[in-house]
Amino acid sequence: MEITKKEILSLKERKPINEVCFKPIGIIRSPFKTLKGIPIQSSMSESEGTIEIFPEYQDGLRDLDGFSHIFCLYFFDMVKQPVPLQSKPFLVDEKKGVFATRTPFRPNPIGISILQILSQLDNIIHVRNVDMLDKTYILDIKPYVPEFDCRSIERIGWLQDNIRRKLS
Amino acid sequence: MEITKKEILSLKERKPINEVCFKPIGIIRSPFKTLKGIPIQSSMSESEGTIEIFPEYQDGLRDLDGFSHIFCLYFFDMVKQPVPLQSKPFLVDEKKGVFATRTPFRPNPIGISILQILSQLDNIIHVRNVDMLDKTYILDIKPYVPEFDCRSIERIGWLQDNIRRKLS
Repeated sequence: MEITKKEILSLKERKPINEVCFKPIGIIRSPFKTLKGIPIQSSMSESEGTIEIFPEYQDGLRDLDGFSHIFCLYFFDMVKQPVPLQSKPFLVDEKKGVFATRTPFRPNPIGISILQILSQLDNIIHVRNVDMLDKTYILDIKPYVPEFDCRSIERIGWLQDNIRRKLS
Repeated sequence: MEITKKEILSLKERKPINEVCFKPIGIIRSPFKTLKGIPIQSSMSESEGTIEIFPEYQDGLRDLDGFSHIFCLYFFDMVKQPVPLQSKPFLVDEKKGVFATRTPFRPNPIGISILQILSQLDNIIHVRNVDMLDKTYILDIKPYVPEFDCRSIERIGWLQDNIRRKLS
C-alpha cells in the first residue's frame, strides 16, 4: 500500500501494551440462533448467511467481490472469562492446551472462518460456509489467497487420529 | 471441548457491543527491527524467530508441539488510526478497499501469519516463516489444519494478475 508517515508510529513511540481494543466493523446474520448444532468449522458448513458491514466501513469493500473466499475474523461474545487453559476436546479423553485446539473458549476469543462470497450488494455480503452464531460481531475481513494461506504441512498433532471421526 | 454453563453467557445476556478488548498472550522476537524489508506474507519468509508466551498462559500450550504449523494472530501496533479505507496496493495503480487487501493498515489491525513450529521449550516457541516486526504482541495461537484451512477456490480478484509479480 502507499504508506505515509502519518499512518505509522515511529519506533520510538512504541510502548508496552496491556490491552488492545477493537470496534466491530459489522455483524453476521446466520441461521444458527443458538449454540446447538453450529458446525465445528466453516469447512464443514454449507450454510449461508449475510455479513452486514457497518456503513462507515463500506468504502473498504471496494473490489472485494473479485475474490471467491475471505477470512472472516470475529468475536465469540458468548465466552465468559477467564477460560480454562486446558480442556478435553470433543471425542478425546485427554486434556489439551487451549492453543492446541480450535475451541471458541480462548483467552482472546477471536474466531477465524473461511467463507465463500456468493454475492455482494453495497454493504451486504452474502456468504456460504457459515459456522457462526447469529449476530456475531465481525472484526476484520481479508481476502483468502491460496498462494499465501494453503500450506502443505507435516503434522496435525492429536487431531491426526481424530479428524476423520470428527469430519464424519 | 467440555463446555460448562459457567463458561457461556445465556442468549439473554448478549448485548450490543461497541468495543472488544484483548490482552496480549505473548510477544514475538523477530529479526525485523524496522518495517523495512519485512516479507509481505509469512508464506514468503524463511526467517526464524521466537514466540514468548507469557507465563500465565503457558498451560495453554500443552500438546501444541504435535502440530507442525500454527495460525498466529497478532496486533499491528505501529498503525495509527483512522486508516484510509481505500489505498493503492504495491504494484497496482488503482485504489482497492482495505478489506480486499492484506495491508496491516486496517480499521482493526489484526495480522494473521502461518508459522512453522521448529521447537518448543516451556513457554518459548521457535518458529519459521516470520513476517512480523520484532516485539509484536501475540493475541492468539491456533493449530493450522489443512483439512479446515486449505480451500480450492475460484477467484483471487485483483491479485490474480499481480501475484506472480509480487511473489517474484
